[in-house]
Parts: sequence; C-alpha cells; structure tokens
Amino acid sequence: VPHPTIGVFDSGFGGLTVLRALLPKHPGAHYIYLGDTARLPYGAKSQATIARYAVESARFLATQGADHLVIACNTATALALPEIRAAIPIPVTGVIAPGANAAHAAATNATALVLATSATVQSHAYRETCAALGLRAYEKACPLLVPIVEEGWIDHPVTRDVLRIYLREALDEMAAENLTPSAVLLGCTHYPLIAEVVAETLRELHSTATVVDSAEATARAVAASLTPSSQPDTPTTFTCYATDSIEKFARLGSHFLRQPIPEVHLLDLGG
Amino acid sequence: VPHPTIGVFDSGFGGLTVLRALLPKHPGAHYIYLGDTARLPYGAKSQATIARYAVESARFLATQGADHLVIACNTATALALPEIRAAIPIPVTGVIAPGANAAHAAATNATALVLATSATVQSHAYRETCAALGLRAYEKACPLLVPIVEEGWIDHPVTRDVLRIYLREALDEMAAENLTPSAVLLGCTHYPLIAEVVAETLRELHSTATVVDSAEATARAVAASLTPSSQPDTPTTFTCYATDSIEKFARLGSHFLRQPIPEVHLLDLGG
Repeated sequence: VPHPTIGVFDSGFGGLTVLRALLPKHPGAHYIYLGDTARLPYGAKSQATIARYAVESARFLATQGADHLVIACNTATALALPEIRAAIPIPVTGVIAPGANAAHAAATNATALVLATSATVQSHAYRETCAALGLRAYEKACPLLVPIVEEGWIDHPVTRDVLRIYLREALDEMAAENLTPSAVLLGCTHYPLIAEVVAETLRELHSTATVVDSAEATARAVAASLTPSSQPDTPTTFTCYATDSIEKFARLGSHFLRQPIPEVHLLDLGG
Repeated sequence: VPHPTIGVFDSGFGGLTVLRALLPKHPGAHYIYLGDTARLPYGAKSQATIARYAVESARFLATQGADHLVIACNTATALALPEIRAAIPIPVTGVIAPGANAAHAAATNATALVLATSATVQSHAYRETCAALGLRAYEKACPLLVPIVEEGWIDHPVTRDVLRIYLREALDEMAAENLTPSAVLLGCTHYPLIAEVVAETLRELHSTATVVDSAEATARAVAASLTPSSQPDTPTTFTCYATDSIEKFARLGSHFLRQPIPEVHLLDLGG
C-alpha cells in the first residue's frame, strides 16, 4: 500500500490545529496544507464567495496529488462542502460531521452549545447535522474570538471577559428555552487554543458542560478512512502553501501547529 | 463646470466615514464608493497582496468615469499609493497625508500617537509622512479595534478595556523615550466610531492629547482640490459597489455612513 498524500485546506492558520491532530495518526503519510491567507477570514463572508475561494483551493490540492482532502475550516465546510465534492475527484472530509459526532457522544442530555463564526452559525450546518443524530444544538456566533486568538491573548483578562459575555448570552438564551448544554463544541479551528479558558469560564457560570474539539474528532475520522500503513516506520512529512506572506505563516502558524514550520511556499490563486 | 464624479475606495465599510465627511463638502458631486468586502480586512495582509487588490479596485472606479479617486483606506494608502497612482490616469488622494497634516496642526508639542492596523504600522507611512512635517509620530498597532467596531461594541466595557491596554502600552512606550503625545491620530477609518471612547480613555490615563480624525481631514483636502460648483443646488448623489454580500453592506454600512444606503451593486473583481 503506497503512503497516502492528504490535502488539508483552511482559510488561514486555524486548520493547523487539525493538521497537528492528524500528524501522529497515520505514520508515513504526506500532508499538503494550504492556508488561503490572502483572503482570510472567511467567517464573515457570503456563501457564494466562500464557495468560490474554497473550490479554487481544493482544486489546487487535488492537482498536487492529494488522494484525500480534509476541509479543516468550519466555515468552508458549512458553506461549500457540496461544491468542493463536486469539483474534485477525491474523497473529501469536512470538520462538521466529525465534530457533531463527538458532541453527540459527549452530550449526556442530548443538548449541545456550538461556538462558531457568524457565517458558520448563519448556515445552521451544525444544528442540522446534530439534529440528524438526535442532538439538539444551539449555535452561538463569537466574532471576536478569532482576532483575539490571532492577537495572542490566550490566557488574558479580555479573553475571559469576552468569553463570559458570549457564554452567558448563550446559556441565558438556552435557559429561556429550558435547555442546558452538556457539551460545548468548539466549532472553529482557532478555538482549541482557548479551550481551557472556555472550560474555566463555563465552570464560573455554573455550567458542567464538557468542551469538545472538532479538530481531534476530524483527525480520528480521517485516519479511520485510510488503509493502515504497511511501513509504519516511514517518517510523516508535510508541506505548507499560503496565499499571503510566507514569513507570517511560518511565524503565526507554529503556535497552532505547536512545532516549527520549516518551509512555506507562496501560492497565487489569482484572487 | 460639470459636476465631478469622485471614486472612493476602501477594503470594506470603514471608508464610508470618509464618504460621510465628503458628502456635504461639494454640492452636486456624484460619488462612486467601492468596498472590496470579499477580500477584507487588508490590515493584516502583505504589501504585494494589498497592492494587487487596491489596483484592481482603483481601475474599476476609473473605468466607471471617476475624475478623482480617494483612497479611503489607511492600509491601502500606506502600502499601495504609488502603485495606484501609476495604474490610473486621474488624481489620487490618500488618507495619510491629510491625516498627518491634521495631526501636525493639533500637536502643540510636535509629538503625536498614531493608532492603526498592523499593516499600516509596519509600513511606517505615518511616521515618515509626519517626520517630513516636523512631527514626531509614534505608531501603535491595534488589531482588535476593527473587529470590535464591527461587532457593534461601541460604548462597551470590553472596548474600554482593550483601549486601556493599547493606549497604556503606547503611552508607556513613549514615556520610556521621554515622549508625551499632544495629538492622537485615528489612523484607520473604523476608529472614528469609537473616537469618544478613545478620548475618555486618554483622560482616564491622564493624557491631555487631542483626538484627530483623518476622515474629516481627507474630505477637506479633496474638496479643496476641486473647482467650486457653478450650480450649488444640484443634489449630491452616491452609488455603492461591494465585492461580497450587498445586503450586509447596506446593513452594516449604514452605521458608518449614518444614513440609509438605498442601493448596493455586487461587483466581481475575479478574486
């Protein structure tokens, strides 16, 4: 069995949390990561624009020899998964179905809260995917969390204040419908960096919900779909492409990947 | 003298604060505003990417019949003004020179603090333009202010906390060099919406600096360059184009323009 080449696509750096979860899962695989940093963030853009950007990126990864494509971006998965699947001839895994499955497994009372970008929330992709599993999902848009993570304010008073506002609003809105979440799904690949602060703020607001990360769930789903390697000692490798500054990608990206990014290639998608 | 057609370009909604300042200045003018909302924000992108996006937008406004172009975006002015001037055959006014002039007029001790996006700060366009006037400008990047304004958190505790952090850092860094600003220039078109909170936070930090807005200064500079209208009773008109959702442009944009935006046209720049 030849080692697979797995394309991983995100609008920017956040998808590196998915790549980080993928790296140990399938020894010998080669990963090609593309961050469409010239056009990020996708979170506040329209469906048509997001689909166009995502399809261009997916086509690039397919032509680079990917056998399998991971859409490591909640917004692109929520708004463009059918368009991406129609555009390229390889299997495509998004982050929403694995995330919804993980939330379903963790939500003991079949009620979850999903934190995500405005575009992901407006698509209601999580609510619908969760509903098909019998899980009631309440979606809360948290537009300030991505810029806060990118500012590097991880364990920071402003981050705690903003989270307290968003989580209190969400819990109050749910309580008004007699709902209490037993799982909180991080529905954006930036959010795993503040997972601990989310958990602490939930405790402070007297919630006992479990925090669930869709990056880890997605990596498990991808690994399960691949044929186990016949040469498990082959090193795992990865190559990164970015559509904007490669220096910034290497610098910021290493926080998300939690390891240095030795080489980044600049890619012009014509946007 | 025929009434002028004035193109106004911004990466998104912020430039509408410049259009708002322009509207009363030259009765009878027609304004064409383009917000490149599909590719916003420019503030964290590289020079090459910003120049490519800005030139495409400027060419569109020139082909629509603009006699004069206003770059109502600090980042595009800072990083792409020479490229824009080289690409189109009409006069181009950016926001940085008028803003620097206004700061110079307000800074009684010839020392100013400029608040701006990361890309504008890294270009040092304000520092250099101010230096040529004999004004010492200290530049502070405030990456969270644009998303906070877009969240609508204008008079909000988080906005005050974030401003307190940025302004205290800037004032401390300046004090370490024995500098005290007597003017604070809002070097991003989103910031006029929180001008009052900036002024109050400065008072709280015992600064007596005056807050200066580059939108108003730019509108005055453009009006001064135009031949006065021979038919001052002709109504002033404007048309808006956006590269992403026209519904969102009309809705969010009306906060920046402080009046309803009746019609927005969708434009595909091929990005």
